[in-house]
Amino acid sequence: MKKQFAVIGLGRFGGSICRELAEQGMEVLAMDLNEDKVNEFAQVATHAVMADSTDENTLKSLGIRNFDHVIVAIGDDIQSSILTTLMLVELGVPHITVKAQNDYHEKVLNKIGAHKVVHPERDMGIRIAHNVVSKNVLDYLELSDEYSIVELIVGRNIHKKTLIELDIRARYGCNIMAVKREEKIDVSPMADAELVEGDILIVIGADKDINRMEQDLFDED
Amino acid sequence: MKKQFAVIGLGRFGGSICRELAEQGMEVLAMDLNEDKVNEFAQVATHAVMADSTDENTLKSLGIRNFDHVIVAIGDDIQSSILTTLMLVELGVPHITVKAQNDYHEKVLNKIGAHKVVHPERDMGIRIAHNVVSKNVLDYLELSDEYSIVELIVGRNIHKKTLIELDIRARYGCNIMAVKREEKIDVSPMADAELVEGDILIVIGADKDINRMEQDLFDED
Ligand SMILES: Nc1ncnc2c1ncn2[C@@H]1O[C@H](COP(=O)(O)OP(=O)(O)OP(=O)(O)O)[C@@H](O)[C@H]1O
Ligand SMILES: Nc1ncnc2c1ncn2[C@@H]1O[C@H](COP(=O)(O)OP(=O)(O)OP(=O)(O)O)[C@@H](O)[C@H]1O
Ligand SMILES: [Ca+2]
Ligand SMILES: [Ca+2]
Ligand SMILES: [Ca+2]
Ligand SMILES: [Ca+2]
Repeated sequence: MKKQFAVIGLGRFGGSICRELAEQGMEVLAMDLNEDKVNEFAQVATHAVMADSTDENTLKSLGIRNFDHVIVAIGDDIQSSILTTLMLVELGVPHITVKAQNDYHEKVLNKIGAHKVVHPERDMGIRIAHNVVSKNVLDYLELSDEYSIVELIVGRNIHKKTLIELDIRARYGCNIMAVKREEKIDVSPMADAELVEGDILIVIGADKDINRMEQDLFDED
Repeated sequence: MKKQFAVIGLGRFGGSICRELAEQGMEVLAMDLNEDKVNEFAQVATHAVMADSTDENTLKSLGIRNFDHVIVAIGDDIQSSILTTLMLVELGVPHITVKAQNDYHEKVLNKIGAHKVVHPERDMGIRIAHNVVSKNVLDYLELSDEYSIVELIVGRNIHKKTLIELDIRARYGCNIMAVKREEKIDVSPMADAELVEGDILIVIGADKDINRMEQDLFDED
């Protein structure tokens, strides 16, 4: 059977989740207090209802406990976010993801049983910071506060150099996990193959080591 | 010389950029209208100033044109965001990244010369939608249409199994690049170390192979 999702709160974040789930062919119930929002999503979601998620009877009558995953994307009204989450937990919803506004909010959500807490603005801020620091970094995945995987674009500085010559693991403590040339990914790159300008290195390491390597080996802005 | 960044607007998004740039050792000027915000970032940023970015003389006296990259993270006040961006463009700032609230805002920002426009809530909504569709995938980096790096959470199915026993490379053609336990990342995991429920595997491979592995080895929804 198809998985059933519900999104509570149709701001920019919740609205975007709702659209993307619908695009992926999922069943989505969209809920908001605000009539305009509900109308906006009537064509996008499987169902769109105008309702206050802090009203337990509403949640029950919508059969919310039968949904596989409920996303609470209420922003500024932290109290409603917490109350809604608490009721979803008590009703036994199997997966509850909640947007947090700040660390205090996150702590409370975790305490009362939210399964996943997300900070869209904070996390996207971190991503953007990585992207603006260097034009060589195309994309990245933050593994922890200090470790990342980054995609680095090979410039003139190391054009025609081999991985042996660069000796990145010994010099910088980073590992090259893959090399991408055009759309082809090589997950076990040869140590003696020459890199070419435009190749993309997939590197795992500590942020500070990656930065040091980038400053030494990649082109200046 | 170190690159100089300025972040205008210290909400959740701008504040997060500011913190991450500072963590990466960058020079950052933090600016906000709100005194509390400025105090909050006084210890984080290189400089924190209480100022209205729509005041051209303020921007000039701060020497904003000498910054390499200015990020405008003003949210609800779209008019101030646009006016600030316009002045930064006229002053010749080489890289200007601006947060947009909606498509109309984005269009205007592009017209007046912003170099990059970002939608943190919308883009994070899209990411989260991908994540909630499978509960084992915590995060991912798309390397190409067919290859990805994913963070997969270890469930009961492979609790206490070793990497040798799982033999993932031979069976699925995927590579385990790192194992994360709590906040610690191990980038050369031992083949005979036992995985524990809650560990996170960082896996690189073709999407179809990763999906196959996930279906076999990770918990059902
Ligand atoms: N109790 C509630 N029941 C249903 N919807 C609610 C409730 N409280 C708030 N909402 C809705 O949640 C939506 C998101 O809230 P809000 O705009 O405060 O968040 P936000 O963090 O600024 O949003 P974003 O940053 O995602 O645009 C709004 O459309 C609001 O009407
Ligand atoms: N003209 C201005 N000059 C400097 N700072 C400003 C100006 N206008 C607004 N700000 C600041 O920008 C910050 C972010 O604005 P706001 O809170 O409206 O955005 P938001 O999109 O809700 O934020 P976020 O979602 O990132 O938390 C606020 O701290 C506000 O004081
Ligand atoms: Ca807001
Ligand atoms: Ca927001
Ligand atoms: Ca970090
Ligand atoms: Ca794909």
